[in-house]
Amino acid sequence: LNTGDEAALQELLNSQNISDIAALIDEYPEYTSQVMSTLAVHRAASVFKILDINAQKTIVRELHSSRTAALLNELPADDRTDFLEELPKKVIRDLIKLLDPEERKITLSLLGYPEDSVGRLMTPEYVYLSIHNTVAQAFEIIRKVGVHMETIDVVYVVNEHGELVDDIRIKDLILAEPHARMDQITDDRVIALNVHDDQEHASQVFKMNNRVALPVTDDYNILLGIVTIDDILWVADEEYSEDMQKIGGTEALNEPYLNISFPKLIQKRVGWLVILFLSEMLTSSAMQFFAKELEAAIMLSFFVPLIMSSGGNSGSQASTLIIQAMTVGEVRLSDWWRVMRREILSGLTLGGILGFIGFVRIAFWHYMMAHGIMQDVYGEHWIELGLAVGFTLVGVVLWGTFSGSMLPMVLKKLGADPAVSSAPFVSTLVDVTGLIIYFSVAYIFLHQLFVQAA
Amino acid sequence: LNTGDEAALQELLNSQNISDIAALIDEYPEYTSQVMSTLAVHRAASVFKILDINAQKTIVRELHSSRTAALLNELPADDRTDFLEELPKKVIRDLIKLLDPEERKITLSLLGYPEDSVGRLMTPEYVYLSIHNTVAQAFEIIRKVGVHMETIDVVYVVNEHGELVDDIRIKDLILAEPHARMDQITDDRVIALNVHDDQEHASQVFKMNNRVALPVTDDYNILLGIVTIDDILWVADEEYSEDMQKIGGTEALNEPYLNISFPKLIQKRVGWLVILFLSEMLTSSAMQFFAKELEAAIMLSFFVPLIMSSGGNSGSQASTLIIQAMTVGEVRLSDWWRVMRREILSGLTLGGILGFIGFVRIAFWHYMMAHGIMQDVYGEHWIELGLAVGFTLVGVVLWGTFSGSMLPMVLKKLGADPAVSSAPFVSTLVDVTGLIIYFSVAYIFLHQLFVQAA
Repeated sequence: LNTGDEAALQELLNSQNISDIAALIDEYPEYTSQVMSTLAVHRAASVFKILDINAQKTIVRELHSSRTAALLNELPADDRTDFLEELPKKVIRDLIKLLDPEERKITLSLLGYPEDSVGRLMTPEYVYLSIHNTVAQAFEIIRKVGVHMETIDVVYVVNEHGELVDDIRIKDLILAEPHARMDQITDDRVIALNVHDDQEHASQVFKMNNRVALPVTDDYNILLGIVTIDDILWVADEEYSEDMQKIGGTEALNEPYLNISFPKLIQKRVGWLVILFLSEMLTSSAMQFFAKELEAAIMLSFFVPLIMSSGGNSGSQASTLIIQAMTVGEVRLSDWWRVMRREILSGLTLGGILGFIGFVRIAFWHYMMAHGIMQDVYGEHWIELGLAVGFTLVGVVLWGTFSGSMLPMVLKKLGADPAVSSAPFVSTLVDVTGLIIYFSVAYIFLHQLFVQAA
Repeated sequence: LNTGDEAALQELLNSQNISDIAALIDEYPEYTSQVMSTLAVHRAASVFKILDINAQKTIVRELHSSRTAALLNELPADDRTDFLEELPKKVIRDLIKLLDPEERKITLSLLGYPEDSVGRLMTPEYVYLSIHNTVAQAFEIIRKVGVHMETIDVVYVVNEHGELVDDIRIKDLILAEPHARMDQITDDRVIALNVHDDQEHASQVFKMNNRVALPVTDDYNILLGIVTIDDILWVADEEYSEDMQKIGGTEALNEPYLNISFPKLIQKRVGWLVILFLSEMLTSSAMQFFAKELEAAIMLSFFVPLIMSSGGNSGSQASTLIIQAMTVGEVRLSDWWRVMRREILSGLTLGGILGFIGFVRIAFWHYMMAHGIMQDVYGEHWIELGLAVGFTLVGVVLWGTFSGSMLPMVLKKLGADPAVSSAPFVSTLVDVTGLIIYFSVAYIFLHQLFVQAA
């Protein structure tokens, strides 16, 4: 690279896969613009597509503007829109000026669709045929316009109004009689996406229909563009990242962890942490409320962390199970009753198991204390204490699984993202209520002790 | 359906998309075998592919064995392997007997590759050409053998030893001169997967290279089969589900939530819950150890839940951020030093903010208590208590983010799945150590009080 031998560099780059060139740029960011200006422009565009946003910004900043123009014009329209979307408004305006009139029109129209909609993933680069074309004519059209297309693995048949009639795999065209007309080889079983469909929905449709590209239509069935499956793979990854971050109790970063600036990283994280902290302060109030009971039976405080964490763990287990099942479409809102029944049964069973272990643990320690192996801190009321802790565990785990499973469904019903009802939120909810359950149950079993102390 | 009018049913089914038929079977499981035997066998195979494992089992059990044989033979080899994998050994043996000799050979060889390897996703249904073929010959071959292929969007060129030379998109073939020889239109930039590669790795390669199919070779570059991108979309979904379930603190269910039997659901969930419960018992021991300090200053116990949950929340935030960043390849093990530096700084900043809020809260309540609005429970040592809680929060949040971010990297380094170091585990770790930090800090500030009480 640093010998400055342009010809040798060009040869080296031409023999590499685009993923290798992208890796090269990742490793030696200082040579980014040199590499990008040496590459053939269509390969440069392929590399540009898979670089992260910061590398892309650097390239646009450093490259000569004529080269930038060539690069942007070469980029598939959907990827170009995706890139522009990330830039400040002013920069978008300057860059759009560099585009050919035709490309400019396409880009502006794509930018008009809402984020996360199928419209944003659309590419206008596809081959369409009339229902009156023959197979031989179809190949002529493909030869003429196919060079510039992102994919010609599937072609689309429209009627005279521009309405989508069918999609035909190139495989079926090759295997068909040259004289056959399109309306003779169509099977009228076309699957299309609406331009306003959610990208997540598109991902499900791709999964269930085994296609590499799907046509996109408007509300009147007019063919607007296509979406290819490779973009869907990126969507799936992005959704995964966003869901994970929400489940961890942070806003979605929208930038790679190591690239995001430190103030921004803190800003994305501090919001939910503070909200959770303020809600969790209710636990202090609850504890203060039970101050007298605590003083009368200090041993009650020993089990507060154990009880709270059991509720939190069972709650986060239930909530991630349900969030995941809803994301992949295994559980629908209409299943709420089946889910609730399952989770109430699960909560009782799991709570029963933990409660039993909790009681045995207290009994075992009492035995060790009674035999002088440890200092006695439970006193004569160890059985009551054990029963209180055991029954509290049943109640807290039941409440944890119940609220952990129902909260994501309620949020979805209200139109919010279920992933927000993540482990930390369920834990906070269960912590406060768990304390109240604990002291209420303790009151039943240790009533006598409290009365004595008062 | 229940009129028994076979012809009408057949017509109805032929006009439906396969995803609609799958939905139909989901809704009316009692008609499964009737629907499957009415469908044309190649469409029945497409429906079978996307049904869940329980519906698949029902079909194989209920369908006439000649029909089952036709269905299994029609199924793409990779999906067939995937299905067989889920069955008991004895059933596999019986079903394999139903296959054609050729299909049997393929299935047995695919079953020989490890789960989660590219080998399992491979299909032997692809078109390959010799480097000596012309474009015209290529189309002849495609017409002859292409009918039965899962995809012919890309064809593969091999040399006389069967070694993979290049992949050619059908688009380039259509656009090429009919007389051109394969070695004239190849560009020698082929991307291939190794048959033993991890499926997760394959998903990355697809993402970075914008292909709909990739060839699979053995260690000697011999072409064995291809992997298509639609299978990769399923892999991505499956991984997502598994990661989520681990992060929620449960074993991967490997079955849809509503289909898994209740005893199995409990079995998958109870293991980690009990392990976490037993570890969390250490908090009771820690609290008992500080019993005297607690008795001397009962107000210390009020803040135990608040401090523990703050440590847990910051820890789960850090761990999910890092697990997610590692999964999508944004953070590598070699970045550990940069991650640690970032997380220590984040922990100090976030802890400082929460600590400040905690101190202000105690000061505010003291003010209300001093003015008789609430009962005074903090006493004259409220400043010391506030400082103890504030500094503990800095320490606990710092420790939470530090261990939450480093644990996934340590696990990965040791060859384990980072997703196992999920929120619940980090919380448990931070809970026990958080208590020790709390009482140590309290000892510094409230030393005098403890001495008095003693």
